[in-house]
Amino acid sequence: MANEAENTNLKAQILQVAGRMFLEYGYSGTTFQKIADELNITKGSITYHFKNKFLIMEIFIDDFFNQLKAYIDSYPDEYRNIYWRYCIMYIYAYRRIMRTPRNIELFYHKDQQTQWQTHKINMVSHIYEQIEQDFHKSYEMADLQMKAYMDMGARSRLFSVYQENPVSMTLDQYCYYHIYLIGALCKLDEQTIQENIRAAFQFADTHEPETNSIFQ
Amino acid sequence: MANEAENTNLKAQILQVAGRMFLEYGYSGTTFQKIADELNITKGSITYHFKNKFLIMEIFIDDFFNQLKAYIDSYPDEYRNIYWRYCIMYIYAYRRIMRTPRNIELFYHKDQQTQWQTHKINMVSHIYEQIEQDFHKSYEMADLQMKAYMDMGARSRLFSVYQENPVSMTLDQYCYYHIYLIGALCKLDEQTIQENIRAAFQFADTHEPETNSIFQ
Repeated sequence: MANEAENTNLKAQILQVAGRMFLEYGYSGTTFQKIADELNITKGSITYHFKNKFLIMEIFIDDFFNQLKAYIDSYPDEYRNIYWRYCIMYIYAYRRIMRTPRNIELFYHKDQQTQWQTHKINMVSHIYEQIEQDFHKSYEMADLQMKAYMDMGARSRLFSVYQENPVSMTLDQYCYYHIYLIGALCKLDEQTIQENIRAAFQFADTHEPETNSIFQ
Repeated sequence: MANEAENTNLKAQILQVAGRMFLEYGYSGTTFQKIADELNITKGSITYHFKNKFLIMEIFIDDFFNQLKAYIDSYPDEYRNIYWRYCIMYIYAYRRIMRTPRNIELFYHKDQQTQWQTHKINMVSHIYEQIEQDFHKSYEMADLQMKAYMDMGARSRLFSVYQENPVSMTLDQYCYYHIYLIGALCKLDEQTIQENIRAAFQFADTHEPETNSIFQ
């Protein structure tokens, strides 16, 4: 029992130190060696809890997205549907992430994205499933996964265009095209897509989420 | 006049030799030096006509796609609409390209794809424009370009999945998801998409195109 408590405690400490280091040194600059040195432990004690840096960052990213969803859900009277909810979540997330070069480096780091592309497929498939269910569409699980792959490929291409040539696209357009794609792949009709995107931007423009996250 | 004729002649010779070398040595193995040696000319005489290998391959690829379209158009009685026509074109193209590792290397070579991703955006936008026009959709030019970017990103992601894990997807499924995406982004309703994709596969299964191309 003592050991288990110690382990839980160490895990929390690793996360705390890693979070601070991500902010201070960025994604590339944060290493297991630095975290180990700070906590006076071995690198092995870290890999016992987290196999790699990706998995630590994933916890921070998941937590960030969960906070955004919880914030949206704290306005139950404004709730429209699951598509609308995810539209707002992505608008919030992209606006916050793109706010600073540090956030961009943390979220879009090449190593993180490479792992993300495969690691998050089930999560993205699940978003498509929830939306199609909510709109009473019939769907096949295999299709959802392919839609998730296409979504991930399309959004990473959009991000490259946005990064390489920022005048080609505003941040809100970047958000728009990604959530438009989700609606189109979920077989929502054009009017439903446009209405929900409009309502999502309106909500996002008038409600500022408070989050406690490494994306500041 | 003599010079112009000589130039045209040399250009044709370069293409002929390049085409043969692509088949013999693959994309990586074909170099301007080898082409120059074979024709007993300088590398400069090649770059006068073609700045780089990508632009030579582009001619072969465009020609291949044009032959496929011409073949489909040689059955005017079966014609349904522009979406259907592009569905068949992609089914034909992918089935042919994926038939041999040599074809895959020629078409999907990393260097070719990198250039393709930006060089072909206008061509892909134009496909989206033609389809939306044909179905009397209203559209903005800026949207078409972003749809083209999303298309290119999504299909290159699908291709990676198909290559890395062929059991996850059959070749026809790879075709299906790409042309499904085109239909969805062109705001076609689910029934129209499914009907046209079904008709396109049926046409492709019963009409074998004859092409004179490096993709054999």
